[in-house]
Amino acid sequence: MISVGIVGGTGYTGVELMRLLSHHPEVEVKVITSRSEKGRLINVLYPSLRGVTDLAFSEPDITELAQCDVVFFATPHAVALKTVPTLLEKGVKVIDLSADFRLKDANLWAQWYGQPHTAAELLPKAVYGLPETNRDAIKTAQLIACPGCYPTSVQLGYLPLLEQGLIKTEGLIASCASGVSGAGRQAKISSLFTEASDSFKSYATSGHRHGPEIQQELSLAAGKGVDVTFVPHLLPMVRGIHATLFADLGQTDVDLQKVFEERYKNEPFVDVMPAGSQPETRTVKGSNLCRIAIHRPKGSNKVIVLSVIDNLVKGASGQAVQNLNIAFGFPEAMGLDVIPLVP
Amino acid sequence: MISVGIVGGTGYTGVELMRLLSHHPEVEVKVITSRSEKGRLINVLYPSLRGVTDLAFSEPDITELAQCDVVFFATPHAVALKTVPTLLEKGVKVIDLSADFRLKDANLWAQWYGQPHTAAELLPKAVYGLPETNRDAIKTAQLIACPGCYPTSVQLGYLPLLEQGLIKTEGLIASCASGVSGAGRQAKISSLFTEASDSFKSYATSGHRHGPEIQQELSLAAGKGVDVTFVPHLLPMVRGIHATLFADLGQTDVDLQKVFEERYKNEPFVDVMPAGSQPETRTVKGSNLCRIAIHRPKGSNKVIVLSVIDNLVKGASGQAVQNLNIAFGFPEAMGLDVIPLVP
Amino acid sequence: MISVGIVGGTGYTGVELMRLLSHHPEVEVKVITSRSEKGRLINVLYPSLRGVTDLAFSEPDITELAQCDVVFFATPHAVALKTVPTLLEKGVKVIDLSADFRLKDANLWAQWYGQPHTAAELLPKAVYGLPETNRDAIKTAQLIACPGCYPTSVQLGYLPLLEQGLIKTEGLIASCASGVSGAGRQAKISSLFTEASDSFKSYATSGHRHGPEIQQELSLAAGKGVDVTFVPHLLPMVRGIHATLFADLGQTDVDLQKVFEERYKNEPFVDVMPAGSQPETRTVKGSNLCRIAIHRPKGSNKVIVLSVIDNLVKGASGQAVQNLNIAFGFPEAMGLDVIPLVP
Amino acid sequence: MISVGIVGGTGYTGVELMRLLSHHPEVEVKVITSRSEKGRLINVLYPSLRGVTDLAFSEPDITELAQCDVVFFATPHAVALKTVPTLLEKGVKVIDLSADFRLKDANLWAQWYGQPHTAAELLPKAVYGLPETNRDAIKTAQLIACPGCYPTSVQLGYLPLLEQGLIKTEGLIASCASGVSGAGRQAKISSLFTEASDSFKSYATSGHRHGPEIQQELSLAAGKGVDVTFVPHLLPMVRGIHATLFADLGQTDVDLQKVFEERYKNEPFVDVMPAGSQPETRTVKGSNLCRIAIHRPKGSNKVIVLSVIDNLVKGASGQAVQNLNIAFGFPEAMGLDVIPLVP
Repeated sequence: MISVGIVGGTGYTGVELMRLLSHHPEVEVKVITSRSEKGRLINVLYPSLRGVTDLAFSEPDITELAQCDVVFFATPHAVALKTVPTLLEKGVKVIDLSADFRLKDANLWAQWYGQPHTAAELLPKAVYGLPETNRDAIKTAQLIACPGCYPTSVQLGYLPLLEQGLIKTEGLIASCASGVSGAGRQAKISSLFTEASDSFKSYATSGHRHGPEIQQELSLAAGKGVDVTFVPHLLPMVRGIHATLFADLGQTDVDLQKVFEERYKNEPFVDVMPAGSQPETRTVKGSNLCRIAIHRPKGSNKVIVLSVIDNLVKGASGQAVQNLNIAFGFPEAMGLDVIPLVP
Repeated sequence: MISVGIVGGTGYTGVELMRLLSHHPEVEVKVITSRSEKGRLINVLYPSLRGVTDLAFSEPDITELAQCDVVFFATPHAVALKTVPTLLEKGVKVIDLSADFRLKDANLWAQWYGQPHTAAELLPKAVYGLPETNRDAIKTAQLIACPGCYPTSVQLGYLPLLEQGLIKTEGLIASCASGVSGAGRQAKISSLFTEASDSFKSYATSGHRHGPEIQQELSLAAGKGVDVTFVPHLLPMVRGIHATLFADLGQTDVDLQKVFEERYKNEPFVDVMPAGSQPETRTVKGSNLCRIAIHRPKGSNKVIVLSVIDNLVKGASGQAVQNLNIAFGFPEAMGLDVIPLVP
Repeated sequence: MISVGIVGGTGYTGVELMRLLSHHPEVEVKVITSRSEKGRLINVLYPSLRGVTDLAFSEPDITELAQCDVVFFATPHAVALKTVPTLLEKGVKVIDLSADFRLKDANLWAQWYGQPHTAAELLPKAVYGLPETNRDAIKTAQLIACPGCYPTSVQLGYLPLLEQGLIKTEGLIASCASGVSGAGRQAKISSLFTEASDSFKSYATSGHRHGPEIQQELSLAAGKGVDVTFVPHLLPMVRGIHATLFADLGQTDVDLQKVFEERYKNEPFVDVMPAGSQPETRTVKGSNLCRIAIHRPKGSNKVIVLSVIDNLVKGASGQAVQNLNIAFGFPEAMGLDVIPLVP
Repeated sequence: MISVGIVGGTGYTGVELMRLLSHHPEVEVKVITSRSEKGRLINVLYPSLRGVTDLAFSEPDITELAQCDVVFFATPHAVALKTVPTLLEKGVKVIDLSADFRLKDANLWAQWYGQPHTAAELLPKAVYGLPETNRDAIKTAQLIACPGCYPTSVQLGYLPLLEQGLIKTEGLIASCASGVSGAGRQAKISSLFTEASDSFKSYATSGHRHGPEIQQELSLAAGKGVDVTFVPHLLPMVRGIHATLFADLGQTDVDLQKVFEERYKNEPFVDVMPAGSQPETRTVKGSNLCRIAIHRPKGSNKVIVLSVIDNLVKGASGQAVQNLNIAFGFPEAMGLDVIPLVP
């Protein structure tokens, strides 16, 4: 049994950690922090947790956090980088769900997040927490940087193709769409029901913060720089990301279905669907799964990969728990055996 | 470990049974039947069950079903009553999610369902499967008639008041609303996304089949006939029932909050919320819980009880599993520890 | 052609006024004010108005407003009462969509709105702007207080019954539900898509500000005090109010359908549907209509009236335009001939 | 005043024609046919039309239709081609909203629609009814084939680029998404609220019937064959299409914003939004508008065009009315001045 702290517990990724860890037999959540909700029971803010936990939010306290075996950061960007150095010094493992340690290049980070990265010395040490590529490094990592939601769905769709050099590395197009929960639990006009429902739009077409992360990781997979155009859209639904990925095949006589099945055959959370499938986001809702299907339009050298995840689970808190399991030697799926609700 | 059969597995209550029983450590689903989908894997019809079960739908076969310890009927009305007599003879337990054995009066049933009840001799034997009132009888029942979804939410809200004679038995008003999944997985125009979304309406205002069931059970609780006006509405959402229940208090100096807390203190699936709460249907989505809050408008002798359930779980398949647990002596919450997804 | 000013133009009732008045052949909107959006084009904030208007928001200016023939207040409560006295002095007509002049009792207003009413001397002069009861007074009114959204739907449903003394005046129950747009264009957590979608709940069960307004007006219609229990609910949809109204009939041999048809036969915006109808909120979306149906459950002395409106139109801006038409002698439906979008 | 017939009036495009034509000052709808609903009032099937029309559905009758000046076909494919030849012979104009006369190649049609085209001799005569490219031909056409919904949104986005040779004609990618109303008013499981809501998926990835139409028309615009990959997706909303269009620029020093503004400056229903805009489908809901924005991601030769329409209006019935106006010499926007509802 290990003890866990959660910094930034009022947001959707924080409460999602609580939901998943409450069922985890080897974990006890000791601390969940929130400045704004200090002293309030979690199950008052989230009545769905009534009967599940009686923990209250507390003011973040470094001494208290340092007594945990592992601390999750479910915070906006530029919060974790202030506290993480101290926690690492004290021997605590850190699993960061924010963007602070995903990019390897501190200048690039500074450029996209509008401020200097004040813990740049930790970047080489941080392990990018995508188990499907970095499982071994995660086992011994002290600082794990969980991937962004879009980057998770995009990488899992492109990896088998790029790793084996089956597609051209130029002209990749990732047309993605996310449910509104991706915008977090923030009182913003654009996230109101009256603004986001019954409509669809793209956003950040000129550049989204997940762009450089996608570029970095796909380039690592390909062994050379890739050029990808990433366009996110906002869906009138709560959870789910759908990635529609386009690429030009370098060679056309490969059995792509087999390539994907082979690549992911031992992955507990990647489901390569039968040829011809059209994955629906609802089939992964609440679960840590990524479901993938591969299509090849007739008479063209294009490949289309469809990839769906729950942005709050495989795209955030579920992947964080998967990383915890790997880092502490628990079975990788422990606490993550949720069957999606359909309908 | 007991063996289970499910008759009528393609509908939403059938697949919901699969979802719940897949996690049940003492149960193995041996048979799931469907005439229309015979031979098809469940997880092809419901990709959310990929990796969970490899069972295929089979033609209903009485011999095969008779080898199960218990058979669930997740069928439209007037199906179970044809097969149940044979199964009971062969010593199988039956948990019927349909309406066939809920009403004690065969003539009333015939009137509301438009055909004679061909197994009326079983009605006295059938136990109405609301654990909160009939737990002891369920323990030894061979035939359990699971309550309807609306009746479950309405009864749990009125029971403490009626059992203790705290309200008048005339003039009860149950204004209820259900998500569209209550209409089942049937290709009907009125259940289309284009017809049911972004709108709200009442239906069956002149009389709904759940009316006589509510009347029958509330009268049993009150020890005399009650008069209740029941109006259902259709909500633009998938799962959930919300009951807004009105009654006139017979005496006004009772601590109703305490009455409810006392009544349900040992019930694993009834959550009496703090005074002043407004239960949201989403806080029970996917779970077997009923959450209840009691309100008393100022300067009036009215009491308002708010009661929410997931119509497919506590209103159908979850309650059926709860009944199975009671009937077979398993811990009552076994297989039912789902934490609702919020958001 | 008259000139119009709109104070508080960024909210949903403000932009809805713009939508309706843009098609009104006898009206020109000269001023639309907003402190926060001063200088910005309306069609930048609301791209749905591109090509419809090139007006920009301006700082509220009493001199400018005083040059209009009529000024609409689409403001939160306690704003209009500060400016209206001056405008009235200068001979401008005022149509107030806020709650400031609806209640006749300044103390009651103070109690529900948490502050003293600083223009109480105007209350006797203000005409309650429900054309179906006050058409004649509206014709000559200088200050029109538009009804709240819930009160509009509730009154139109109860009026024929109360005016003719057909129901008991005690024990009225109004179980109502509104789309999220009723909460306005305000950045609140509870109005987020992630919080309000796919769920249903009651709110303000212990008392809602529209309660005393309903009480006041129904009592006027009945000619004596009525006792009504009003429970609002929040619907996962954008527009629409559905009122489910219960009452006990004083006499049971009346043709209620005929009573309603007779009462509303000359009303351009009240549609008494055929007996047995179940009005859907979507059938009035975007329009100024109220659709009503009357039901009598068998074997009971209850009457159930169902009444639907678009909360932003007949419940706010459309009714305001209807009042303008009456007050200025235009045809009552001018600018209001929108056919609801279905689906 | 001209007389109009509508064949196939029960579907969503049929009722949408009724909505639009009811406000059209130069048109009288004389006949609306439906075999299944013969004799029923339209406003019973669609209560949103109560007070708007008292027309009843009638059995299709060629003599009656032949007395109209123009007949709309709002039918499934392979219906119009049976009746249209006779109507043309009798001198009636036909505006076909179905797919029967869109493709110029009868064999291609046969291949995609699974049956021979029995009126192939009319194909050369049929004018493809996209006013933005074929206005002059529409003026004198007797048979107008209205474009499909996806093809309308895709063409309007690509036209300025292809007509001027600004992009490469290979590797075009159209990633599009449609609301559920695109599937029509048909009782299909996949269109149920319970199946389509709160989820997102692609469909027909291996080939959609609108693919060859897009190919045909874009090739005409480019003056040579273009190669476009078209992927449709299903959105959890009722109305709206969003097209996200990708292309490689042939030259990169062109002011694309200006190119689009110039191309569409006289088009009443194409709105080129300011640079940097993200068009939302809701801003065109109910209207005949197409809103377009152009984006150029930094450091790449890609251009991204975003294009939104209401699939039932500019994508079907509104465009049909626009064609009627052109064909009969009415002002092009007559009857089409609907302001979208927002929120």
